[in-house]
Amino acid sequence: MGEATENGSGQQKWRFRGNKDLTTASAITVRGVLNMLKDNLSKDDPRTVIPLGHGDPSAFPCFRTTSTAEDAIVDSVRSAKFNGYSSTVGILPARRAIAESLSKDLPYALSPDDVFLTVGCTQSMEVVISVLARPGANILLPRPGFPYYEARASFSKLEVRHFDLLPDNGWEVDLAGVEKLADENTAAMVIINPGNPCGNVFSYQHLEKIAEMAKKLGIMVIADEVYDHLAFGSKPFVPMGVFGSIAPVLTLGSISKRWIVPGWRLGWIVTTDPNGILNRSGVVESIKGFLNISADPATFIQGAIPHIFEKTTDDFFSRIISILKHTADICYEMIKEIPCITCPSKPEGSMFVMVKLNLLMLNGIKDDVDFCLKLAKEESVIVLPGTAVGLKNWLRVTFAIEPSSLEEGLRRIKAFYERHASKQ
Amino acid sequence: MGEATENGSGQQKWRFRGNKDLTTASAITVRGVLNMLKDNLSKDDPRTVIPLGHGDPSAFPCFRTTSTAEDAIVDSVRSAKFNGYSSTVGILPARRAIAESLSKDLPYALSPDDVFLTVGCTQSMEVVISVLARPGANILLPRPGFPYYEARASFSKLEVRHFDLLPDNGWEVDLAGVEKLADENTAAMVIINPGNPCGNVFSYQHLEKIAEMAKKLGIMVIADEVYDHLAFGSKPFVPMGVFGSIAPVLTLGSISKRWIVPGWRLGWIVTTDPNGILNRSGVVESIKGFLNISADPATFIQGAIPHIFEKTTDDFFSRIISILKHTADICYEMIKEIPCITCPSKPEGSMFVMVKLNLLMLNGIKDDVDFCLKLAKEESVIVLPGTAVGLKNWLRVTFAIEPSSLEEGLRRIKAFYERHASKQ
Repeated sequence: MGEATENGSGQQKWRFRGNKDLTTASAITVRGVLNMLKDNLSKDDPRTVIPLGHGDPSAFPCFRTTSTAEDAIVDSVRSAKFNGYSSTVGILPARRAIAESLSKDLPYALSPDDVFLTVGCTQSMEVVISVLARPGANILLPRPGFPYYEARASFSKLEVRHFDLLPDNGWEVDLAGVEKLADENTAAMVIINPGNPCGNVFSYQHLEKIAEMAKKLGIMVIADEVYDHLAFGSKPFVPMGVFGSIAPVLTLGSISKRWIVPGWRLGWIVTTDPNGILNRSGVVESIKGFLNISADPATFIQGAIPHIFEKTTDDFFSRIISILKHTADICYEMIKEIPCITCPSKPEGSMFVMVKLNLLMLNGIKDDVDFCLKLAKEESVIVLPGTAVGLKNWLRVTFAIEPSSLEEGLRRIKAFYERHASKQ
Repeated sequence: MGEATENGSGQQKWRFRGNKDLTTASAITVRGVLNMLKDNLSKDDPRTVIPLGHGDPSAFPCFRTTSTAEDAIVDSVRSAKFNGYSSTVGILPARRAIAESLSKDLPYALSPDDVFLTVGCTQSMEVVISVLARPGANILLPRPGFPYYEARASFSKLEVRHFDLLPDNGWEVDLAGVEKLADENTAAMVIINPGNPCGNVFSYQHLEKIAEMAKKLGIMVIADEVYDHLAFGSKPFVPMGVFGSIAPVLTLGSISKRWIVPGWRLGWIVTTDPNGILNRSGVVESIKGFLNISADPATFIQGAIPHIFEKTTDDFFSRIISILKHTADICYEMIKEIPCITCPSKPEGSMFVMVKLNLLMLNGIKDDVDFCLKLAKEESVIVLPGTAVGLKNWLRVTFAIEPSSLEEGLRRIKAFYERHASKQ
């Protein structure tokens, strides 16, 4: 052994250091950027902060979850049946309820063994990235996208290649671009539908084309459907798993958005793969392996899942959808009145819309980050700079907030524009 | 790009594969070994299975958690204040309650900023291993120990070196061995107190010696105190943080064992380091970085923590301690009557005892794993082979079960011995 030497000043020497990779990986998350913006808020502004930056409307009374979900938790904890450790893949009744619910929208039936419970969709992403991170492998991610994928890939040393979503084509995937990016080391492509950050919903036909391209390339599709069923435009939500017989699909989801309970941390990975390819390729075994060495969602929340899935009525879902449709409309119409930002297509799903910033119409605003920092300081409005989701000089605006707050926020953005408008 | 080629038979080629590292890492967990034993149970045995294999007594009525803890969860979820995302380090009221509670046993006051909430102690271990896993670094782990550390270190490619716990010395740390193992790349040593798997409790004097050794070596101490306060012998539980001014300590804990709710998945990492060394060395920043890219414990469980900590009365803790003391006594006395196993010291804490297997007294039993497999098959009793915790031809016996079940389990072990005893 070597004794810890002391330097001339007699100071103790300590040999450990933090892992810098973690700081690097975590710097690129949405939460990191939002924290930076919050730090820039002016303490002198007496007005309420308007949070148009993140997808968590749970604090607004109109978005409160259904009492059915609360009752399910209460019953579960009072039963004292779910205080112990869960199996690492999740308890059977919860997996069965999820399998049955998702099967309703698929041309084949899922089994509980296709379902793996996670600590929210966050952990689902962690699992799939870790499972695919073999040396030399790469993954295709959308641009704009959700930077948590990039953060986990950075941590796992999985190479990332970005394909474009096309704003002039309803944010569809640039499939020709996907084909050019892929090579023999490509393991998967990720789609997020309904779209974060774009608020788009992929059509049945487009999803089929994605599956055909994945098959051609020999890759799987990771379908992030955390905003599943939150579609309120012309196109219905179609799960990617519908095309699981063309190319294998790992579907990621959670109760976070549909039930407006992101803090409950209950998500899933589902193998929507009727041909069993993910099983034969060892992907399923790796998922189980990773879950064996990972934390589980709270057992009594798992215990509440059958009740939550079976007893939540359509009233609740319809009400949430109708509020989102209303706030998306407000957002789209009011953005038209703000000359420096333009919205390429009306949002039809999720909780967000991407708008393009025209810097030429603004004085003294360097870029999207500068815009958001100044907007936070001057107007107490938080909006996510597009840079945080891979698209510089765009903005991601959340419309999933109380309508009156949304209107107030957009009025403040307009006032900000008017104060900074370039005199042309 | 390269198109996925098809082979002569026209079969589709898929390019992804699972990550074998995950299967390797997960094979060495306690849960993996217990699953193997459960698969060996005889379906023809009409008797109840006696689970002496794992540390989760929550299913037994006498170990039911306090209604105070259940009430806290119910109030928290009914308040609808905790449905949203938490901050990545955990919500302030929960961190404050934990800081205040742990400070009661320390010579200095912790601040909420010293506390990081995790998805159970499992995730605490994941965090510290990930934070310390720099290329070339190594960590010192106890033998016997808790194999989840080894599993996470294997996944993170952190080198493991084992020091011994000394059975003839009350399972104290072999400090001379620690000194020999350490070198300039050693970051930390782990101690588990009260002990898993040994059921020992370290004395104040021994903990102080550990701190002095850590200081000499320039390493931190990771003090796994998930069984904190579960001490019922001659020595009181002393937190390692008492010696945080000698060497910096990361204290890991959770509500899992003290409140008998391992399924609630609420744990913590606490920097018990009054000199701020972990902060200056970048360890704190790395912990925050890792938590930024990890799942959080459910927000409403965090929201229940102040209520759980402040309102649980001593009655509950005393009752649990007295049951554990009683079952530890039963276990120790009944083991004396089973000639093929010996217990080097009476358990004084946690939920386990390690006993040594004398294979010479048994016919046709190859080793500890063979013993446990046959015991499961013939007697429907689950006991963990010592191999799973690093000590071949020992057994880890859990005494944290209903007393009558424990007696029944030990009677069956005795019958098993009698049937297999070698005729000498």
